[in-house]
Amino acid sequence: MKMWGGRFSEPPGEDFLRFTKSIGFDMRLYPQDIRCSIAYAAALAKAGILSSDEEKKIVEGLNQVQQAIESGDLALTSEDEDIHSVVERRLVEIIGTVGGKIRTGRSRNDQVATDVRLFIMDEGNNAISSLLGLMDAIREKAISVGQTAVPGYTHLQKAQPVLLAHHLLAYFEMFSRDVKRVEIARDSADCLPLGSGALSGSPYKTDRDFLAGELGFSRISQNSMDAVSDRDFLAEFLFALCMIQVHLSRLAEEMIMWCTSEFGWVELDDQMATGSSLMPQKKNPDAAELIRAKTGRVTADLLNLLVVLKGLPLTYNRDLQEDKEPLFDALDTVLSSLGLAKGMIETLEFKVKDINSGVEDTAMLATELADYLVMKGMDFPASHNLVGQIVAYCEEKGKDIGSLETGELKKFSDKFGPDIEEYLSISKALERRGLVGGTAPKEVTSQLAKAEKFIENHRF
Amino acid sequence: MKMWGGRFSEPPGEDFLRFTKSIGFDMRLYPQDIRCSIAYAAALAKAGILSSDEEKKIVEGLNQVQQAIESGDLALTSEDEDIHSVVERRLVEIIGTVGGKIRTGRSRNDQVATDVRLFIMDEGNNAISSLLGLMDAIREKAISVGQTAVPGYTHLQKAQPVLLAHHLLAYFEMFSRDVKRVEIARDSADCLPLGSGALSGSPYKTDRDFLAGELGFSRISQNSMDAVSDRDFLAEFLFALCMIQVHLSRLAEEMIMWCTSEFGWVELDDQMATGSSLMPQKKNPDAAELIRAKTGRVTADLLNLLVVLKGLPLTYNRDLQEDKEPLFDALDTVLSSLGLAKGMIETLEFKVKDINSGVEDTAMLATELADYLVMKGMDFPASHNLVGQIVAYCEEKGKDIGSLETGELKKFSDKFGPDIEEYLSISKALERRGLVGGTAPKEVTSQLAKAEKFIENHRF
Amino acid sequence: MKMWGGRFSEPPGEDFLRFTKSIGFDMRLYPQDIRCSIAYAAALAKAGILSSDEEKKIVEGLNQVQQAIESGDLALTSEDEDIHSVVERRLVEIIGTVGGKIRTGRSRNDQVATDVRLFIMDEGNNAISSLLGLMDAIREKAISVGQTAVPGYTHLQKAQPVLLAHHLLAYFEMFSRDVKRVEIARDSADCLPLGSGALSGSPYKTDRDFLAGELGFSRISQNSMDAVSDRDFLAEFLFALCMIQVHLSRLAEEMIMWCTSEFGWVELDDQMATGSSLMPQKKNPDAAELIRAKTGRVTADLLNLLVVLKGLPLTYNRDLQEDKEPLFDALDTVLSSLGLAKGMIETLEFKVKDINSGVEDTAMLATELADYLVMKGMDFPASHNLVGQIVAYCEEKGKDIGSLETGELKKFSDKFGPDIEEYLSISKALERRGLVGGTAPKEVTSQLAKAEKFIENHRF
Amino acid sequence: MKMWGGRFSEPPGEDFLRFTKSIGFDMRLYPQDIRCSIAYAAALAKAGILSSDEEKKIVEGLNQVQQAIESGDLALTSEDEDIHSVVERRLVEIIGTVGGKIRTGRSRNDQVATDVRLFIMDEGNNAISSLLGLMDAIREKAISVGQTAVPGYTHLQKAQPVLLAHHLLAYFEMFSRDVKRVEIARDSADCLPLGSGALSGSPYKTDRDFLAGELGFSRISQNSMDAVSDRDFLAEFLFALCMIQVHLSRLAEEMIMWCTSEFGWVELDDQMATGSSLMPQKKNPDAAELIRAKTGRVTADLLNLLVVLKGLPLTYNRDLQEDKEPLFDALDTVLSSLGLAKGMIETLEFKVKDINSGVEDTAMLATELADYLVMKGMDFPASHNLVGQIVAYCEEKGKDIGSLETGELKKFSDKFGPDIEEYLSISKALERRGLVGGTAPKEVTSQLAKAEKFIENHRF
Repeated sequence: MKMWGGRFSEPPGEDFLRFTKSIGFDMRLYPQDIRCSIAYAAALAKAGILSSDEEKKIVEGLNQVQQAIESGDLALTSEDEDIHSVVERRLVEIIGTVGGKIRTGRSRNDQVATDVRLFIMDEGNNAISSLLGLMDAIREKAISVGQTAVPGYTHLQKAQPVLLAHHLLAYFEMFSRDVKRVEIARDSADCLPLGSGALSGSPYKTDRDFLAGELGFSRISQNSMDAVSDRDFLAEFLFALCMIQVHLSRLAEEMIMWCTSEFGWVELDDQMATGSSLMPQKKNPDAAELIRAKTGRVTADLLNLLVVLKGLPLTYNRDLQEDKEPLFDALDTVLSSLGLAKGMIETLEFKVKDINSGVEDTAMLATELADYLVMKGMDFPASHNLVGQIVAYCEEKGKDIGSLETGELKKFSDKFGPDIEEYLSISKALERRGLVGGTAPKEVTSQLAKAEKFIENHRF
Repeated sequence: MKMWGGRFSEPPGEDFLRFTKSIGFDMRLYPQDIRCSIAYAAALAKAGILSSDEEKKIVEGLNQVQQAIESGDLALTSEDEDIHSVVERRLVEIIGTVGGKIRTGRSRNDQVATDVRLFIMDEGNNAISSLLGLMDAIREKAISVGQTAVPGYTHLQKAQPVLLAHHLLAYFEMFSRDVKRVEIARDSADCLPLGSGALSGSPYKTDRDFLAGELGFSRISQNSMDAVSDRDFLAEFLFALCMIQVHLSRLAEEMIMWCTSEFGWVELDDQMATGSSLMPQKKNPDAAELIRAKTGRVTADLLNLLVVLKGLPLTYNRDLQEDKEPLFDALDTVLSSLGLAKGMIETLEFKVKDINSGVEDTAMLATELADYLVMKGMDFPASHNLVGQIVAYCEEKGKDIGSLETGELKKFSDKFGPDIEEYLSISKALERRGLVGGTAPKEVTSQLAKAEKFIENHRF
Repeated sequence: MKMWGGRFSEPPGEDFLRFTKSIGFDMRLYPQDIRCSIAYAAALAKAGILSSDEEKKIVEGLNQVQQAIESGDLALTSEDEDIHSVVERRLVEIIGTVGGKIRTGRSRNDQVATDVRLFIMDEGNNAISSLLGLMDAIREKAISVGQTAVPGYTHLQKAQPVLLAHHLLAYFEMFSRDVKRVEIARDSADCLPLGSGALSGSPYKTDRDFLAGELGFSRISQNSMDAVSDRDFLAEFLFALCMIQVHLSRLAEEMIMWCTSEFGWVELDDQMATGSSLMPQKKNPDAAELIRAKTGRVTADLLNLLVVLKGLPLTYNRDLQEDKEPLFDALDTVLSSLGLAKGMIETLEFKVKDINSGVEDTAMLATELADYLVMKGMDFPASHNLVGQIVAYCEEKGKDIGSLETGELKKFSDKFGPDIEEYLSISKALERRGLVGGTAPKEVTSQLAKAEKFIENHRF
Repeated sequence: MKMWGGRFSEPPGEDFLRFTKSIGFDMRLYPQDIRCSIAYAAALAKAGILSSDEEKKIVEGLNQVQQAIESGDLALTSEDEDIHSVVERRLVEIIGTVGGKIRTGRSRNDQVATDVRLFIMDEGNNAISSLLGLMDAIREKAISVGQTAVPGYTHLQKAQPVLLAHHLLAYFEMFSRDVKRVEIARDSADCLPLGSGALSGSPYKTDRDFLAGELGFSRISQNSMDAVSDRDFLAEFLFALCMIQVHLSRLAEEMIMWCTSEFGWVELDDQMATGSSLMPQKKNPDAAELIRAKTGRVTADLLNLLVVLKGLPLTYNRDLQEDKEPLFDALDTVLSSLGLAKGMIETLEFKVKDINSGVEDTAMLATELADYLVMKGMDFPASHNLVGQIVAYCEEKGKDIGSLETGELKKFSDKFGPDIEEYLSISKALERRGLVGGTAPKEVTSQLAKAEKFIENHRF
């Protein structure tokens, strides 16, 4: 159904219609659109524009439209432009012209803004649930690996030993910030634009606070011209999704490396890998690669919206119709990536034995040597420099730092005493890092408990 | 059909399959994939790996697969991963296990690279045709407006009068560069990767030059590791599409402005506009707005690929599967935008009468005054400054520059003589700009002839 | 000063040093870096690693370094890599090797993260002040234009009349959301990473809560590996800046249009415009154009960081050094754009007389006609359609809707009565829009009061 | 010097000037700007607008301006807006008001477009030289590693053995395409806009073909309105730079991995690595990390320009001033990254012994087994599946494929004969890949010769 046309002498061209219609993607908003119309019918009734009988008819009709959509009984016609016109067209088919009254004082401009806000409030919750699902899998995997130590890296060079659980919990932290960002975007969406009309506000006495209450909004918009052209909340949601995918890409990158025969930390479950059409021996971490790649996609979705918004004059411009496809694409990409990442984490096996051999590279204990000398009274820059010479000596002689004898060390500084041997172990190095956020086993255990609490507090 | 699996003890999980499969979008490559396989069968036969009977069977089978796809008779199964496995699965169903021989020495890595290159060579031609279509519409509209003069703008301020045809031909220039860029991207795609295997080259004697000839490639790739992971040609094509959309966005922006009641240059055809669901008087340039907005989308598609490629180690990584959706999306967006722009140009009406009143703003002739003084021997900076004072005088007095009498002008400089009156007209100002590329009617006519020739030379 | 090198047999190459050093831009972090070191010295003293005398020396030395920088007395050497090494180098020059003790248990990884967080906490406040400055200018300009009505636009077509003050306040709303977003980014930055060491946590007993208190942080980070590689807060701040610039670009676009002779709403102050080197009459809105263009820049800065972060394995990688230039560039761009926008708003003059003639286009009252008929009992779709026919009739006859006589209207519907004349005026149309957020003068006045309160509540 | 102002009653504000001036970055264009003016003086003389004496004075004056800039003797004043006004201001200071005549018929709009095109033609050549420098280093390194075999990877899993030289030459291919792209961008820039005036063409008889010849352009622009607002050539150059950095990021990623102790392929030269301020043993591949990260920057520079261009109406808008900073930034970034990458390649050492042990992983020969069976008459899908079972058997038994005895293999298929042993070696696997682009030593040698020729043909 066309919702306009009286002033036109010719109908729109076919190519034009195909190019401008949005029903191909905005059909997805039907639950929000119908919910919105039901509330609006109540507000029109409250304002005396609909009789209570008309309201009842409209509500029943809208429920039938929803059933028709959900059962697949609603066939689209070539004239259907968007979800709003489809719902109204079908409503009128079911209950007659009284159905048209639902449009009184409302424009597609404030209607679509309301629908999309409701959608983000709904899907924000889904995103949070998916985040919590992955976070719980991380937490459980972290518990399951106990006190396994791994090399910690900076610049992808072995740096200092850390607990594998500590490493995994770093991702827990990232995703916990993502939860907060999604909550913030959801809160930004939580503001009712309905009642703004096309741009200047509705002249009817539709109670906007009542509408907000019916639809679960906690605030109403304060400027009609802004309300119909504001897509900040959508950009915020896309940004929050983007950061999730960026974090996933970091996890994916590490998974891919851990699966190499060179690192050899991880064996993927057969269910989470593919083979090659040519090389029979291959077992590839495709899901991780795709998750990493899809960062391009979600970043592009955010960029897309920002470019659309650049330089748009007030108020509604048709450009804003291009907001929904990046939203849907980014949301679907992130939700499925979160699900796959969860599956990968849950089913992968850390090859602890191989990891243990990797952690035995005692060059990682060089900093301990330097700290030891500080403890014995040397300035850190001096001790750092001296240990650098010990490292160079070891490289030249093909020796491990951990295997140097006290006598050998004493040649570099007489501050080295017999207590260096006990000092210079992976486990002691870990234990010493007991500050909040450090990798000491006790502190990591405490963080695991906080992680559990975080998940409990955010489930809904 | 899974093209691998011997080494796996468990099949891939359902979520995993759904996440990793590409058949949802790469089915579109079926003509290229089948063409590629037919040529490959010939190469395998030439190399003695297929008997001529086997080759014949495979080619007939592949033709049947193509018919099945085109008639809608090929139903996908949940195991179908991508276009390559679908075609092989169906081929084997039709002609038996001999169909599997088509895979000898070939990997999906070199196969998909070949398919996408063929696709871009095909669609590059489509893009050029669409560009030429729009350019021809511009050229014809430019002819149709004759010597109508319009204000030319810089900074969106009226600057100097120009011919409307000259203004329109500026877009002809932009799109002619786009034609060249698409040609260049098509040439970059025109290089056969087939024979590169998974990454190290095929061990079979499949004649790569023969393959190139069969498939219409003019070059073959020179390094197998590069060949399976190179997506430069795709990025180039996306960039070319991006520039087209940027140019379209400029045209769209001007259309939108020209349609305002303030400018009032253009009346859109009813077929190329929409109304409002709320405001009965509205006639909106929606197509132009969407074209403008879709710049975000195509820019995002280019960015998407660049982000995917960033930091990818050699050779093929599953990340590269994310190359096709931005390609298809950008192509479809640009082709439909070009079509709509053509329709808009063809059907719009320039309201020449209203434009004429706009061009009568004689402040645009200030530069003529300055040039006049230069002709009479003044330095340009001095004449520019003096005319600036005349402008200020006119603003203060509420006078038009064009209506100043010679006597009045003489108060500013005695270089003004009676010939200033003839000098100071729109038509003379236009005529004086007869250098190549200038807006003089004669030069514009010459450019229109060049435009016609350009189109003739590029049609194919 | 190089803070490392014991293990190396050759110094870094010159090209290498030039490429990797960051002192060219991170010198700007000196106040934060020095503040951070002063607090750290206190923590080291509290932990017994520095004597109180050493602490005092170090603090005095650091203050001298700060003075040297601020007075321009600190000359860089070719060996200076970054702000951290410069400060330490100078400190040691001033107070001797004891200065080196400041590095104990600290890495540049946790130090730079702390510095940048402090910087954003500081500059977030600057951004908020600049936003409030512009918002106040908008509010005052809105007050100054009183009840001037202007055409409200959708699709850049005249849609319905609105108050100019209402239009301006739409921007107030946008920028008030920006204030909130900057606050959120500032809160995200407000979390102390210091004590995380290079990646695994410091082995020294430096009290992290004490450090947080000293530096004005309200939280401390919970995972050392995350803490040194987390740049979420920076991305959030860039996103907040990006949205500000997007909003500014919308305002700039409108300014540019309003300055055209076709719209003619606005006369820029001479101080806020430039002329042409060729055309003496030009007065160009360059600042608005640059503000609009700089959206590309700030969007690019955000994108830059997202691309850097994509696929980075834990923990610190040198890639993260590329975070600061986009931060500084985006911040400077946004702050200067806000300042210019404020200046433009303050000094521009709305040409109320010209605007008034623009608002007299009574096609904008078509919706009023439709609403009138609804009031008289017609369904909205029917009334919308009927008014569409009236619009077409007016276009054909060259009449204004506002000038139709009741008799003429009655031919379309007998629901039209004599009260239509009073109903169909700009002022009545405005008045009727009295819902919260509507354009009725009373409601706009109420919003102006809320705006004043918002500014009061956010000043600090 | 302000090149305008006659009509203004107040000078521009200070903040406004600071915001709009470009001299801070466009000073860099001085050689092009002066070259352009010298040629323009000749054209003005040829057209009779300058006497030959005036021309001579102007040319001498311009040469003095250039010397002043290069010797640092040209101090900027607060009024200097851009490079064009600085040069003219200084020229007039040196030779008097006759200097102002250089501006006759010229606008900064066509002048800056000419300058930037000249700049890109110059710097395009620099970029090509830098590319060739890196390519030559790759070629020489490839020669130096002889027939060293390495694992070839897909999905970062060991796939098939390849020659290290073959792997390195994959990058040669990428950069050779970059050379072509830079050439294309340079050709796009090679079109003279001068003579287009502000937008409508110059009214003076300045011979544009003569000007083109003087300045080294091979074509002249055909539409003045397009010529002053066309930045396609700049976008093309940015895109070419972007692809270079993307390729560098892939090389950098591999370098970083190769430097890990897990891969252990490469030892960086001490001159090309840094240490840690905390951990004395660290040797970090910082340059590679920064090169990888800077992909964000160059991608952002391209995006920046595309966003600026989106929706710009004709003709020149001040927005276009924002084209230069991304250009300079991307160029500098890419040139320095190319230089560093060259230095890294030249100085790194491949640890051939460690690589050899990595290549002994005989799972990479699984495809050979499958090909062997095809040679013996089995269909490839059947042989692929059967070898998959052999792989699973090896994994279960902890055996290497390469160590299976013929008898053991015969249990899987009686097609295995005693010739399998010779067939199943790394060197035979390499040799068999002798198609063009394959990894066979003979073919790689042939490619090395082509590489040398490529470099010879492109040096200039």
